[in-house]
Amino acid sequence: MQKSIVIYRVCRFTQAREDSRFFISQEENAMKFYMPARLYEESDVVAKHAKEITALGKKALIVTGAHSAKKTGAQADLTEILSDAGMDYEIFDQVEENPSTRTIMQACRSADVADCDFVVGIGGGSPLDAAKAIALMLAHPNWKEEKLYQNGQDNSHLPLVCIPTTCGTGSELTGVSVLTRREQGLKGSIPYVLFPDLALVDGKYLAKAPKRLIANTATDALAHLIEAYANTGADDYTRMLVDRGLEVWAESKNFLLGLEEADDARYSRLMLASSLAGMSIAQAGTTVPHGLSYNLTLEAQIPHGIAVGYFQAGYLRECPAQMRDHLLEKAGFASPGDLDAFFRQICQVPQVSQEVLAHCLTAVMNTPAKREICPFDANEQVLRRIAGLK
Amino acid sequence: MQKSIVIYRVCRFTQAREDSRFFISQEENAMKFYMPARLYEESDVVAKHAKEITALGKKALIVTGAHSAKKTGAQADLTEILSDAGMDYEIFDQVEENPSTRTIMQACRSADVADCDFVVGIGGGSPLDAAKAIALMLAHPNWKEEKLYQNGQDNSHLPLVCIPTTCGTGSELTGVSVLTRREQGLKGSIPYVLFPDLALVDGKYLAKAPKRLIANTATDALAHLIEAYANTGADDYTRMLVDRGLEVWAESKNFLLGLEEADDARYSRLMLASSLAGMSIAQAGTTVPHGLSYNLTLEAQIPHGIAVGYFQAGYLRECPAQMRDHLLEKAGFASPGDLDAFFRQICQVPQVSQEVLAHCLTAVMNTPAKREICPFDANEQVLRRIAGLK
Repeated sequence: MQKSIVIYRVCRFTQAREDSRFFISQEENAMKFYMPARLYEESDVVAKHAKEITALGKKALIVTGAHSAKKTGAQADLTEILSDAGMDYEIFDQVEENPSTRTIMQACRSADVADCDFVVGIGGGSPLDAAKAIALMLAHPNWKEEKLYQNGQDNSHLPLVCIPTTCGTGSELTGVSVLTRREQGLKGSIPYVLFPDLALVDGKYLAKAPKRLIANTATDALAHLIEAYANTGADDYTRMLVDRGLEVWAESKNFLLGLEEADDARYSRLMLASSLAGMSIAQAGTTVPHGLSYNLTLEAQIPHGIAVGYFQAGYLRECPAQMRDHLLEKAGFASPGDLDAFFRQICQVPQVSQEVLAHCLTAVMNTPAKREICPFDANEQVLRRIAGLK
Repeated sequence: MQKSIVIYRVCRFTQAREDSRFFISQEENAMKFYMPARLYEESDVVAKHAKEITALGKKALIVTGAHSAKKTGAQADLTEILSDAGMDYEIFDQVEENPSTRTIMQACRSADVADCDFVVGIGGGSPLDAAKAIALMLAHPNWKEEKLYQNGQDNSHLPLVCIPTTCGTGSELTGVSVLTRREQGLKGSIPYVLFPDLALVDGKYLAKAPKRLIANTATDALAHLIEAYANTGADDYTRMLVDRGLEVWAESKNFLLGLEEADDARYSRLMLASSLAGMSIAQAGTTVPHGLSYNLTLEAQIPHGIAVGYFQAGYLRECPAQMRDHLLEKAGFASPGDLDAFFRQICQVPQVSQEVLAHCLTAVMNTPAKREICPFDANEQVLRRIAGLK
């Protein structure tokens, strides 16, 4: 009797190991996990965590763009709890799309900002990335603008809260800040690790976002999930985050296609997919599609989500088959072409000239870090295919 | 043509949503994620991260038990990199199983310890939990022993590294320290949140561990996964960690049954399951089986892993069917009875008297926190069934 139980077990357990072989195959690799931001993700998250926000300092600097923090109600939620606590604050709401290092310095130089002792970023990736850089620079009042893109050693920064109002950036859960040097026409991550202390995520802020913005940023989240997984830095922790992220992301496809109306639950699932995507790139980073995208945004003014979505199908086509099939299956796409058709259905993807694409290629050829973490040899010929260069 | 694509999508995406309905059902709940420990998990992890360890201070206090840190080679790995860096250290190797508050104070009072400015715990749960409490008390030299179990507000502690040598505690990835007050016969978490700064996990330390210890601690990891999931504090983040944790845990069943020899890969998978289990309880905490177990350990000297394993089948039987079935399926068990038979096959489970079990019940009746997070009404009658009281 005892023996037959054992035999039964052998069969079933061997089966279980076969199924997860894909994960075992990389088991000798180094693994790591780091996520120091304290994340709360719920309805009315700002009001519910007022104490933790106000404990961070005496005077807040609110960093945001011109519109979304106000339209979504996120800024009002924040100023209400600050006022209730009798706390002073300043608002810097001049963060543009693809914020420049110039803007960061402008925010820091304002006289009103001098006595702010913590920073709250509200918005999409641009205000959040700006808030990170401002929190860094305010902690180092003697640093000049160049320090923002020079080899950073000292990551110390003012206490920082990030409140996303879109479902794509993931910036609230990464240490990355992407800034632009307009004169040089360069966009890229600054060399500092700047995790927020608090990441406060509330699906309700999506309810007032334009559908177009939700589609663009959800595409950015998808890109984060794909690039974190199809990445030599991915390990079991990254793959766990991506697998669950893609499952949650796929739940919102009918909504993104305009076939379903959204409710609060839908918005919170879109946010969860974005959070999982943010955690994924915090572990492994983004790769070639993000590298290619920056020039598309700077030169052709294509929003970031569309710019990264533009290269996903091409990227997947170059990936090892097992990896590609796994990602497509989790996201519920039949092929890279199916994913691309979905992307073009939900986003308004403009025609891009071969000339602009050639500049994208040059930019990524100049950023070896993005190419070196590809799970294939990302040589010029391969990159030309991904970029769609004839 | 366009339309037929859309219809196809509706069907497939609806299917995808059905499959993940179990996760959607709780989507209105508050979610949270917090894991401030920086985890590295790889072969020769101590040597590879020597710089990060030695950057934490000038003189290390190594906290460990009498044997395992030496036997596994972990202590030698650490002292080698400290010596290479020209750093001084003290060793406190008197941590007993289920360390007492007395032991913590004894370590802190030693004259040699006064100038240590960071702490490294090496071992199973006992040394790691002791290291946490010592790092806390050394940062507060005026605190008396009572402070260890009195309402803690100030969690500040010396920089802390945890290096596990077993595959169960998860302490290296939680803020929890479980101590015992021998005179009172009480064992429980102290009211402080004490996350390590660095968690360094290396499967090679299991190679020299007795098989019995691996089985006991792997059972503890399984208990962490089950209790974190069957828990009202579980959210999508917890469930993600548990699902992957159970899949990885299940890969080692044949080894635990003695049907396979272990290799380095096996040890690293056992460690990964333990890490995922630790991260899971860091989010949601443990529940009634852990609450019942403490008295089993104190009164009947049953090792912690066996003591928590003892109540898992009973706990699962009380859980909502969908939750129970999900956990059993992920771990590859047909029923709670199947899980219990496996447990009794891999661990030497002693007979426990009704009297001792009655004391376990009393202890958990007195700790409402463990009962309140059960996903069912954990009243006395239900707890009697879980404890196996007639």
